[in-house]
This record gives sequence, C-alpha cells and structure tokens, in this order.
Amino acid sequence: MTETKPDLPPVAGNGLLDRRLFLQGGAGAGVVLMTARASAQERDPWMKMPGAALSESGAPSLFEEHVKRVNVAPRIGTTGSGSSRTPLEYLDGIITPSRLHFERHHSGIPAIDPGKHRLVIHGLVDRALAFDIESLARYPTVSRIQFLECSGNSGGMVAAQPMQGSASQIHGLVSASEWGGVSLRELLDEAGVKPEAKWLIADGADAATMSRSVPLDKVLDDAIIALYQNGERLRPSNGYPMRLFLPGWEGNMSVKWLRSIRLTEGPSMTKDETSKYSDLADTGIATLFSFPMGVKSVITSPSPGLALGPPGLYQVSGIAWSGAGKIRRVEVSADGGKSWADAALDRHVLPKCLTRFRTAWRWDGGPAVLKSRATDESGAVQPTRDVVMAGRASNSFYHYNGIQAWAVSEEGHLNNVYA
Amino acid sequence: MTETKPDLPPVAGNGLLDRRLFLQGGAGAGVVLMTARASAQERDPWMKMPGAALSESGAPSLFEEHVKRVNVAPRIGTTGSGSSRTPLEYLDGIITPSRLHFERHHSGIPAIDPGKHRLVIHGLVDRALAFDIESLARYPTVSRIQFLECSGNSGGMVAAQPMQGSASQIHGLVSASEWGGVSLRELLDEAGVKPEAKWLIADGADAATMSRSVPLDKVLDDAIIALYQNGERLRPSNGYPMRLFLPGWEGNMSVKWLRSIRLTEGPSMTKDETSKYSDLADTGIATLFSFPMGVKSVITSPSPGLALGPPGLYQVSGIAWSGAGKIRRVEVSADGGKSWADAALDRHVLPKCLTRFRTAWRWDGGPAVLKSRATDESGAVQPTRDVVMAGRASNSFYHYNGIQAWAVSEEGHLNNVYA
Repeated sequence: MTETKPDLPPVAGNGLLDRRLFLQGGAGAGVVLMTARASAQERDPWMKMPGAALSESGAPSLFEEHVKRVNVAPRIGTTGSGSSRTPLEYLDGIITPSRLHFERHHSGIPAIDPGKHRLVIHGLVDRALAFDIESLARYPTVSRIQFLECSGNSGGMVAAQPMQGSASQIHGLVSASEWGGVSLRELLDEAGVKPEAKWLIADGADAATMSRSVPLDKVLDDAIIALYQNGERLRPSNGYPMRLFLPGWEGNMSVKWLRSIRLTEGPSMTKDETSKYSDLADTGIATLFSFPMGVKSVITSPSPGLALGPPGLYQVSGIAWSGAGKIRRVEVSADGGKSWADAALDRHVLPKCLTRFRTAWRWDGGPAVLKSRATDESGAVQPTRDVVMAGRASNSFYHYNGIQAWAVSEEGHLNNVYA
Repeated sequence: MTETKPDLPPVAGNGLLDRRLFLQGGAGAGVVLMTARASAQERDPWMKMPGAALSESGAPSLFEEHVKRVNVAPRIGTTGSGSSRTPLEYLDGIITPSRLHFERHHSGIPAIDPGKHRLVIHGLVDRALAFDIESLARYPTVSRIQFLECSGNSGGMVAAQPMQGSASQIHGLVSASEWGGVSLRELLDEAGVKPEAKWLIADGADAATMSRSVPLDKVLDDAIIALYQNGERLRPSNGYPMRLFLPGWEGNMSVKWLRSIRLTEGPSMTKDETSKYSDLADTGIATLFSFPMGVKSVITSPSPGLALGPPGLYQVSGIAWSGAGKIRRVEVSADGGKSWADAALDRHVLPKCLTRFRTAWRWDGGPAVLKSRATDESGAVQPTRDVVMAGRASNSFYHYNGIQAWAVSEEGHLNNVYA
C-alpha cells in the first residue's frame, strides 16, 4: 500500500504536503498494510472467554502503563515540592486527562477536608466574607476549556547546549482542562470592593502559603474560583477543593488550595513574585510582573523518543496556545525554517486553550529539521530562540516560548537542536 | 447575606429568575456567609506540615469517594455483562472524566493486546485490508468533543409508576468525551468501496462479538475509528485499543474493540439489532433502525439525593443534548410546566455534545415541580412523557427522551414524578 497516491503536491521544502490532505479525504498513508482473508479471521484469545467486570471507577489499559507523568522531581531536602510533567507525546486532541495534568507544588499537596476549608475575602472591601464550599456551590457557575502553563515550562531551553529529552520532559508543564467554578467577580460584588483597591493577593492553604498578587482588572475580566476540573471536583494536586484560575496567565498565579483573597492598593511583593517567577535581564534588572503566557507551539509527534519507521508519509501533529486568545495559524517547516506550510487546525479552536494542529509530511529518509510556528489572534508570532534569549540573564528561564526545532536523523531518530 | 438583592424580577412561575442573572454579574445568592476577622485566620492543620508527594498518575481526593459510577449491575448468569452509569448529579461542565464514563458490555471487557489486534476492512471493497494500531496512527487524525448515549438510557421511565432513584440511576447512560481518531472515510477510500455497497457491519472483539449494521452515508459523513478518549488512548471499558464512533447515534452502534468492518448491500440483521435495540410498538410491529438519539435534557442539580437547604436562591443546572446537532435552547419550569423561562447555555455549545444549562431559582419553601425542555438546531423540541409513550409496547424502553419532572417537597427533597 505504500505511496498509493504519489502525485500529492508538496507545499514547502523537504516533503511537506498540502494541509488539505488532512481536511478532507484523499490521503494515501505511506504504511504497509496487510492483505487479509478476512472471512478466515481467527478469533483472538480474548474473544474466547467473557471479559472483565464492570467497575465503579475505570482505569487505563495495562498496555498503557508507559503513559504517565515524567520528571517526577522532588526538590532535594523537601517533601512534596517540585514538579511533574504531562506526557505530551503520547496524547492527542486538546484535553489532558486529569490524572496526567502537570504538577508544581511548593510544599506538597495538602490533605484538605473540604468541610473545614474556607475562602476568606477581606482587605479593601465593605465587608469581609468567608465562603465554605457549600455556599460557593450555590453561586452561578461557568465552565471553560482552557490551558494552564507553568511559567517555568521549557526553561531548559535556555541552556547553552540543547538538553536532550522528550517533548514532555522539555515542554510538559502545560495541560488543558475544562475548568468550572464561580466567577470571582460575583464574590467580589458580594463583598463590595472599595474604590482604592486595584490589586489582590491570593494565598494558598499549602504549608508554603504560596501567594501571588493579581491586578483587579484581570480578575474582573475572567477569573474564576475553580471547583471542577474535567467535569469532576478538582484533583488534590490541582487545588482541591478550590483554586484561583486566571486564564492564559502564568500557572502559579492560579493559586491552588485557595484560602484567602485580600484586596489591596498595590502588589504585595511576595516571595513567590520576587525571588521567583520574575524575569532577570542581563542588565541585572528584573521584570517582576510578566503575567500572560506568550504564543507558543511544539510538535509532539514525531518527537524525541518516538522514532520514525521507514521513509514515507507521516502525520506531523502538535499543540499551540497563547495567553492572548485563540490560535489563528500554525505553520510547519521540515527544512529548518527555510520554507513553511500551513498546518490544519482541529475543530476546537478555543480562546486560551491548547489547539491541536496537524499536517502531512512525506519523509524521504534524509536528514530533516522539523519546526512549528504559531500565530495568535492578536497577531503575535512565536519568536525564534535567538529573539527569546536576547537580553536574558544567564539563569533566567521563565517565559521561554521560542520555536522548537527537532532534528530527524537518517535512522529516524529525533533530537532537540538549536537551529 | 441572605437575599441581598430582593428585587430580582421573576420571569416564570414559582420563583424562576432571569437567566441573565447567570450571564453577567449582579447575583445575590441566598446563602448564609460568615463574617471573618480575616487577619486572625488560623492556619488549618494541613498547613502545618509539608503535603503529599508528586506522582506519575493522579487520583481524586479521598473526600470524593462517593463520586463513582452507579448501578454497577452485572446481568445474572454472566461475567462482565451489564452496565454502569455516570454520576451526573456530582458533575459540572460537559466533559465526563474517563473513569466515570458509563459502561455497557455484552460479555465483559476483553483484555486486548494492542500489538496483536487488527481491524479488517473487507466485503464489497476492491481489496481487503488489515490495519494494526501502528498503521492507523499514521493516518490523519481528528478530535471532537461529543456525547455518547446508550439507547436504553432512561428506559426505566416507561414503568407505570415513576421509579425512584438519582438522576444518574435513571439517566446516567450518557457521557461526553473528546474522541480522537482516524476518519473511517479515509480507510474506506484506501480499500476502495464498490458501488453496490450501501451498508457495513461492524464487529467487536468481545466474546459476544457485538455487531451492528451501519448505513454507509452516516459513515462517510462523520464516523471515526476512535483511538483516543479525553486525550489519552481509549480506556478498556470504552473499546481499547479502537472503537467505531458514530456521533449522535445510539451508543451500541459505536462498536467497541472493533475488529472487522464488512461492506454489504444491506443491513445484516444481527442479534444486536433485531432481538435488542429495536423499538416495539403496541401494534406488535418493531422499528428496527432508529439510529439518532433524540433531543433531550435533564436537571442534574438539584435532583433526587441532593436535597435543598433552607428556602432562598438556588442554581438550577443540567445537561442537554441531541443527535441532530447543537442545542439551541433550554427552558426550565418550576411550576410543572405551566410557565417556562430560558436557561443560560454555557460557553461551549458544540454539535452532538452535552450542553450545560443553568438558571436561577428562588425557592419559596413550598412544593414545586422542576422541568427542563431542550430544543435543538433542527427545531426539534424535547417531547412530554405522554408523547414518547404513545403507541409503545409495554416492554419497549429504548429511545426514551421525555421531559423529566422532579417534585420538590416542603422539606427540600426531590422525587421523580410523572407530571
């Protein structure tokens, strides 16, 4: 069956084919198919006995045990602090299963009794209020499918030499879920915000009391107190029983295990926004408040660890996202950026969400360098690594959104390269 | 804080308030809030020690153990055959977590080795083909967030007296996921469909060899071979490693553990579409092929088992769906259908998907009957129970989509009623 339709037109260098190949029928896939005497198809062993029973809560196949969070890395000398990453290269679509959502904890996952947890709203308000989860549940709820990205995601890319690892090891601090909860604006209306309040500080109920300052404008725009993730209550690692969720902004501002919101005139300069989560320039000056996550994309298949088979037709697939809104366009290059072809965007192109892109590539068996470049609805284009690195201090790794290059060897192996 | 804004205008009888209450700010919720000396907020016990560690695969909170599939009911005399239901009343939004997707198995869940599984396409084709999962993975993939509903869902509602149970016990054979996979049309193009082929028969690799006939027109329209569910590979209970997925059509046609597709001139009259999954009329004549699922909705909160608290403002929330496309409108009644108010639809209104609706209700503490009524983009309106029951044989329970009535007692308890 290999190459049944050899006349597919290339649209960019080194074998990239028209994206319409993936928008409507007519694709020949360069795969070896077995012919079959189907009428003689044997019954597999699992058809010869009744299968497993029903259950109250399902689990993945035992054959999928390799699909797990990676770089499960506690910080030395701590319990529970550190991060784990979403196995991007084994996923498709835009939803991240909750069990695989990345983690970043500053003092582990607190075991919160939801019946005893309170969210207090205080500071520059007419009346301080405390909400338990039952009272929150009676407010109007909303739900939205959106990404969450740690601002340290892809931070390894600032190294002088390209780190070698899988797409998830390098870029796996991003995930997407349906987040459901109560508009924070509703609760602030209930408390009555004083005119001089322009910021708030949000505190988590973890032992580190993770806390971040948030401009009030953002909160009034689209912040929610999230109670649900992918239909069910938040997972403990994502803030059970409630978290702040700030669509499109750096992940750790969406404070987990949220216990306190205090309205203030200005930012509070907490440890988590001064010693960390700030951007140091090579001038020695740090930018403190770089909140939105930039436009970004990464090819997840093929990618390091997922080797190509024989030369032929392949799907190139990945994810793109932007804190500024919807993804408008993703381009793919197979010749290291000399030429670019538009990828097809999947049906669900949602604001501040992962967007799946796909295109067709006929690999000729020679060396290649695959890249993707996203453009968002604001017109922002994902920058090259050189642009992202310009002016950075050497240990400044937050907000890295440069174009990722994967080199393909003649053996079909992929590696991270600066190209 | 109770009733901070008592001047909210009613828009339908028995306390239904304007849906705009849930579209923009300004809601007062009839809840008792605690005032707080926030500056003296004590640190809870879980803040006094580092929390739990990172993990390769997360799990829900131990406080959420009640959120599990219900009516996990094997058929007598079998292993693994039967069904389990999604706990609708504990979920919000539109995504069903994969662990809670309903199950319906005819001979249990086969333990399929994906390396040994093949999908054979044969019958009226130019060449019979067999695909393993690796070869399928090289075809272009698509993903879509859509519902799946067993045609036996809500079948208990045909009983002469209203069965008592939770929303999930009565209506929990419906779930929604992001389904990802290969367009079946692509694979049929590869095999070459002969002009006389108008149907296909799909066989599962379970011990029951569940099989259903499908018109070719539907397949060419939007059928996929699903490989992914909510971002990861299918769960075993949902057809791992591959299933047919027919958006909007009765669930068991989306044959799980798919092993064979045979192109035919007509339907094959399998056991699964003659002895079962057919609609018997009171004339003794059965309708065999009623494929699309009708327009439908159910209020999930409040619902039986979730008692109301004191009189005051509540959110009424539920799900609506239709096999014909998008939901256009959902109306809610609090007076048993004498008057109706439009509910707010959540942001994601997707074709052939669950749509979340919400509205505000001021319960006065008296008896009430809550109903919801969905309208889809084709103009079809969810029928009353009387209309759905007209002409049915007494044991004919498939495709029940009548309006659900929940009676609210003065004590705040809810019950299923025919009203």
